[in-house]
Amino acid sequence: MTTTADPDQVEIPKVSFDTEPSSYKHWTLEVDGDIAYLRLDVDETAGIVPGYELKMNSYDLGVDIELYDATQRLRFEHPQVRAVVVTSAKDRNFCAGANIRMLAQSSHPWKVNFCKFTNETRNGIEDATECSGQTYIAAVNGTAAGGGYELALACDRILLIDDNSSAVALPEVPLLGVLPGTGGLTRMIDKRRVRKDRADVFATRAEGVRGKQAVEWRLVDEVVPKRAWDETVRERAAEAAARSTRPTVDSVARGIALSPLQREETGDGISYRHVTARFDRAAGLVEIVINGPEGDVPETVERVHALGADFWPLAMTRELDDLILRLRANELELGTWIIKTRGDVEDALAFERLIAEHSADDWLVNEIRHYFKRTLKRLDVTSRSLIALIEPGSCFAGALLELALACDRQYMLDGTLDEDAGEQQDAAQIVLSESNFGTFPMANGLSRLESRFYGDQETVAKLRQETRRRIEAVEALELGLVTDAPDDIDWDDEIRIMLEERASLSPDALTGMEANHRFVGPETMESRIFGRLSAWQNWIFVRPNASGPEGALRKFGTGRKAEFDRKRV
Amino acid sequence: MTTTADPDQVEIPKVSFDTEPSSYKHWTLEVDGDIAYLRLDVDETAGIVPGYELKMNSYDLGVDIELYDATQRLRFEHPQVRAVVVTSAKDRNFCAGANIRMLAQSSHPWKVNFCKFTNETRNGIEDATECSGQTYIAAVNGTAAGGGYELALACDRILLIDDNSSAVALPEVPLLGVLPGTGGLTRMIDKRRVRKDRADVFATRAEGVRGKQAVEWRLVDEVVPKRAWDETVRERAAEAAARSTRPTVDSVARGIALSPLQREETGDGISYRHVTARFDRAAGLVEIVINGPEGDVPETVERVHALGADFWPLAMTRELDDLILRLRANELELGTWIIKTRGDVEDALAFERLIAEHSADDWLVNEIRHYFKRTLKRLDVTSRSLIALIEPGSCFAGALLELALACDRQYMLDGTLDEDAGEQQDAAQIVLSESNFGTFPMANGLSRLESRFYGDQETVAKLRQETRRRIEAVEALELGLVTDAPDDIDWDDEIRIMLEERASLSPDALTGMEANHRFVGPETMESRIFGRLSAWQNWIFVRPNASGPEGALRKFGTGRKAEFDRKRV
Repeated sequence: MTTTADPDQVEIPKVSFDTEPSSYKHWTLEVDGDIAYLRLDVDETAGIVPGYELKMNSYDLGVDIELYDATQRLRFEHPQVRAVVVTSAKDRNFCAGANIRMLAQSSHPWKVNFCKFTNETRNGIEDATECSGQTYIAAVNGTAAGGGYELALACDRILLIDDNSSAVALPEVPLLGVLPGTGGLTRMIDKRRVRKDRADVFATRAEGVRGKQAVEWRLVDEVVPKRAWDETVRERAAEAAARSTRPTVDSVARGIALSPLQREETGDGISYRHVTARFDRAAGLVEIVINGPEGDVPETVERVHALGADFWPLAMTRELDDLILRLRANELELGTWIIKTRGDVEDALAFERLIAEHSADDWLVNEIRHYFKRTLKRLDVTSRSLIALIEPGSCFAGALLELALACDRQYMLDGTLDEDAGEQQDAAQIVLSESNFGTFPMANGLSRLESRFYGDQETVAKLRQETRRRIEAVEALELGLVTDAPDDIDWDDEIRIMLEERASLSPDALTGMEANHRFVGPETMESRIFGRLSAWQNWIFVRPNASGPEGALRKFGTGRKAEFDRKRV
Repeated sequence: MTTTADPDQVEIPKVSFDTEPSSYKHWTLEVDGDIAYLRLDVDETAGIVPGYELKMNSYDLGVDIELYDATQRLRFEHPQVRAVVVTSAKDRNFCAGANIRMLAQSSHPWKVNFCKFTNETRNGIEDATECSGQTYIAAVNGTAAGGGYELALACDRILLIDDNSSAVALPEVPLLGVLPGTGGLTRMIDKRRVRKDRADVFATRAEGVRGKQAVEWRLVDEVVPKRAWDETVRERAAEAAARSTRPTVDSVARGIALSPLQREETGDGISYRHVTARFDRAAGLVEIVINGPEGDVPETVERVHALGADFWPLAMTRELDDLILRLRANELELGTWIIKTRGDVEDALAFERLIAEHSADDWLVNEIRHYFKRTLKRLDVTSRSLIALIEPGSCFAGALLELALACDRQYMLDGTLDEDAGEQQDAAQIVLSESNFGTFPMANGLSRLESRFYGDQETVAKLRQETRRRIEAVEALELGLVTDAPDDIDWDDEIRIMLEERASLSPDALTGMEANHRFVGPETMESRIFGRLSAWQNWIFVRPNASGPEGALRKFGTGRKAEFDRKRV
């Protein structure tokens, strides 16, 4: 068997995140009353790019795109689903994790981006359990190795079949010379509280652990004899369902259809109904405009349900989510994202008031809130410089202001530009609302304002008194809500120079700097996965011991051992 | 100017950490009553390795070894020093940070190891302020750039001279394409609470910030006009000194001399009085034996002071500290450290009882406690596999048990080996003491037992009931204190196989895995510096954009710009 080509020279194919259950190649989604079954049944021949076969229920980005789609649809289209069983449709293989040939042939950015997306999907599974009362149960009916076990770790409960062969394992370190890439080490010790020395033994033992030892080491919650398998899985799912706060099967709740996104793509940009992105490849940047709501605010929650995927906050969030994913996967050289909004401040506030008022009592509104939260979190871990430009005609108000606060810098125009004069436009204004004080927490558990004013609760409390009124540039600067507020004379030059400077800096140094600045203070399991764990993994991915011609990733399956540089660093 | 040679091919010179004030080449240490002045006055021509000149008060590992030595001596030799002023003896240059030519010519392991040591020294400065009442004040009397500003950030208070030119700056990202390597980003946002957007502007602006803006952005505590400089520095130091709990100048307290370590080095190992290390280069491991105390336990604190550097806990800690530093710097291919102890359990406990009883009321005992704590923390961030072997004749009791708990795994022999039979040796025993419950916290604030049983306060409470009695292998296994307890028949084979397996794994994957497993749950500023920040920095260091032939580190000062691969990862 020959060594694969140098992965960093391979052209990265364009990725689409569009799918829906009837198009799934690798998963089946069955809804049975208040329990859904997600069965992994990978089509070996249907990798998202050529070059490998997805043997043993191993996965690539395409498999995970379907999983992400399923988790989203379960939340929006199936309000009555209160428990989700993740299992395998294949005999003796739950899931073998990320496909190794795929990893070996992938470029560094592809590997990192793939891990980030799969991490976000697994965090989304935990988010569904925690915030949506839709509890995931892993029914591990065959061996779960690497990312397969990590998928189980993201579930609330892990059942392992006791058939004298099925095991759970994290063989990345011993077999591939890399770390489990989707939170495995962190979830083992932080979530499941596996003792660190056992975690060490487990993560260096390629064959893994099974049976009673797996329970004793807390790697799984229970092992279940084959004969009692189906019944026990059903029981555990029913128990989880019984604890849920979601609508019951008997309720009138009806899901809303996540209809296909309308999207127009050209070489220069992507346009959706409410979100547009315009590329400037020469400058290495993309200008993203989020358009505020148009039309009347629904007066009742019933109307929100009737609008469904057309309800502006949901429609806008879906588009923004899709755009973030596409830009991250397909436009690696657009290093700076400029974020703008356009629309009416009052309309934006009216819509977000609806979210605030009903997220506690309406399942759909709750889902929209948490979906926007997750989408903001995607921005937080996006390895691009994020710059908010707050100009006349913008609507950075309440929830939309979070977009600006997620950015590395915020520039707000003091006054109006000449070109706007004809329209008699008002100066830019921002508005704080209750939404900025905890409705959309970051991965570290803090609101973006708490992060911005870390340890300064006095300022945060003072800002709470400033909600629901319009704040213009000079005051926003005084309140510390924006980085700078150039006037109309300076605006163009200052922004241009700032963007040119940004584009001249090392992309890697910016990624590292931003990943540090965006997460101040406390860390949680989730933030540790993107911080401590992913950063180490990124380092290991570029080291010759993993990805070099003689590295473990490239040598796996060749029958030859990797040759390691034994220096410890 | 030519590009430097490929740094990863350059032979790493052997490093010694021995020094004392009269040998300093780069610092002067002046003690004036209860205030000490540490003045940086780098000898350009005295780099620790050839190839660069230490211009503009820039530093390399040699400069930092002296700083570490000074911080240690200030704590042990100068009990009456209550405030330390860190300043520059050079005009207009406080410190330009790590020397760039040095970084450009250094191998990846050298850079990483250098950053780790400098980080530990800066954490030690904060530890002196917090745990020893010896408060560091940065008197920034010239420009502080990069590591120079990071040194100031480690101090309790930063004074910046207002001379219309002196600034503070972190120019690493804009000039070098790497991150500030010694905690700068984290300390800015976590400790000084600089707003993240300002931190972003600051860390991308090569020329930095000075004057009032530096205060407004919280980058420094005050700017002081030149004419009032000396007086203000003295005042601030006196204020800090007045708050200290250390002995006063009038007290009878006398420092102890940190006499030169007795050390014998051969190609096969290093021997100190109480600590020995035996290398097995073929197997890639080193066996470290910490010998317990010999001779009588001092009966009074006065006797401890009289013994000074000969007092076993201090002597042993100094040797262990030196050994860790030497092995980390000079023995990169010894990837596994086996940690053993040898000695009498009762003696070890008697000595540690003295520490426990007097650390609150005696400055020297307090220093010894915190020094052992810092030395254990060095182990926690050491990128080597740490394996404790607990055998008959060992004395893993109380404080020494922390050594085992710091390891990735603990193996305890159940019974005795044949070879021991002649001596009628007892089986191995370990003893828990109060020291294991918070006396020596890890960087994340947890005790090693709390880390081991993360989130399981019940087990920790139960173990508290098991202090001060001897625990043999089978019970230790039951209590979860050891990973395994092979009997005499299995011991040799099990240990041998385990060590062989370890040696076969990817050194990089092990480093990343261990860095994750050793730090469970909460993170602190300190743990974030070694986790989130250092891991990103390590990644950036190996990327071509920084260290490749066209990378920013190699191109700096050549008059040519780095050529970046613009893909964002």
